[in-house]
Amino acid sequence: MGSRPNIPDIVIGRLPIYLRALYRMIQEEKEYTSSQELGERLGISSAQIRKDLSHFGEFGKQGTGYNIKFLHEKIRQILQVDREWLIAVVGVGDLGHAIAHYRGFAPRGFHVAALFDSAPTKIGEQIGGLTVMPVSAMKDEIHRQKIQVAMLSVPAEHAQQVANELIGAGIRAILNYAPITLAVPPDVRVQYIDPVAHLQHMTYYLRS
Amino acid sequence: MGSRPNIPDIVIGRLPIYLRALYRMIQEEKEYTSSQELGERLGISSAQIRKDLSHFGEFGKQGTGYNIKFLHEKIRQILQVDREWLIAVVGVGDLGHAIAHYRGFAPRGFHVAALFDSAPTKIGEQIGGLTVMPVSAMKDEIHRQKIQVAMLSVPAEHAQQVANELIGAGIRAILNYAPITLAVPPDVRVQYIDPVAHLQHMTYYLRS
Repeated sequence: MGSRPNIPDIVIGRLPIYLRALYRMIQEEKEYTSSQELGERLGISSAQIRKDLSHFGEFGKQGTGYNIKFLHEKIRQILQVDREWLIAVVGVGDLGHAIAHYRGFAPRGFHVAALFDSAPTKIGEQIGGLTVMPVSAMKDEIHRQKIQVAMLSVPAEHAQQVANELIGAGIRAILNYAPITLAVPPDVRVQYIDPVAHLQHMTYYLRS
Repeated sequence: MGSRPNIPDIVIGRLPIYLRALYRMIQEEKEYTSSQELGERLGISSAQIRKDLSHFGEFGKQGTGYNIKFLHEKIRQILQVDREWLIAVVGVGDLGHAIAHYRGFAPRGFHVAALFDSAPTKIGEQIGGLTVMPVSAMKDEIHRQKIQVAMLSVPAEHAQQVANELIGAGIRAILNYAPITLAVPPDVRVQYIDPVAHLQHMTYYLRS
């Protein structure tokens, strides 16, 4: 698994989208698909899909196309989500609650395993079977459970400080909901969810 | 505003990121910045930033760089967020609550103006100063308020049906939190927020 240094990150970023479409097809009890069909569902050209997948091997057959379960399993392996990753969530406001209650993680390789907050009124609260712990306990708990992935749903002004503490505790991937760009060491991955940025992207195209 | 047909969508997608960084700099009371400084904050090359901005005009001066407030205002105009866009939110589970309570919309051009749900237990609930309305009232209310933008936080199995109704009611931009790709007419924009896809993108790079 450690020997694919040259695959563009933008290709890696499309694999979860393919996986999501394949998962949906499995739920629909379809058996085979094609790069054309996938492309139509996703608004991506079939040539792009074939080229993306060709980085990782030969998954389809001329004539019959892709076996959906097989391709789904292969992409799960490539993305390493054929196992369960534990997640620490920091910040249990409304958004943290939504994350803690979200049932879409487990079927796709993730499990919320710890909740943290700094507000005394929140510490001890039970959410989705977990007890909210103080941020001061974060380092020990992340070490204890060997958690590598965190979701950050704290106010923007605290996000960098909390990120630093998470990284110090061993976290290597952060999904950041705070609307700021984090400074992190090169071996730590960060992805951003900023709904307003998506909205602004769309209003460019609207004529009012 | 209607005469920029050739700017790649990927460039448009970076403008909100620049805007977010500039907004942060304004809060820090900085006056000038450079493509180098912006690039370091964002992990984007300074050449890329200059090239992106050059699609829209000359915003910086040799030597002094960019006046932050001026560039911020220009990008707001380009993205058309120098006005307020009303948003309809459909689905007021935990995530819909988080959206309705989120205070980050107003400073960046958006205002949640209507909440809808199909569950009888939720209709009539007061959230963030709004009363949850039934989905059956959606079309009239969206027309009445002339809402063009919607956020969709319903279960995946209902998302396409609700999207169809929103589009029928006049919605032209949808931010979709349901983990499925929506089929929409070519004049409707859709953006996706799927936290699991972001997590899966990162686990590719983790070695467990």
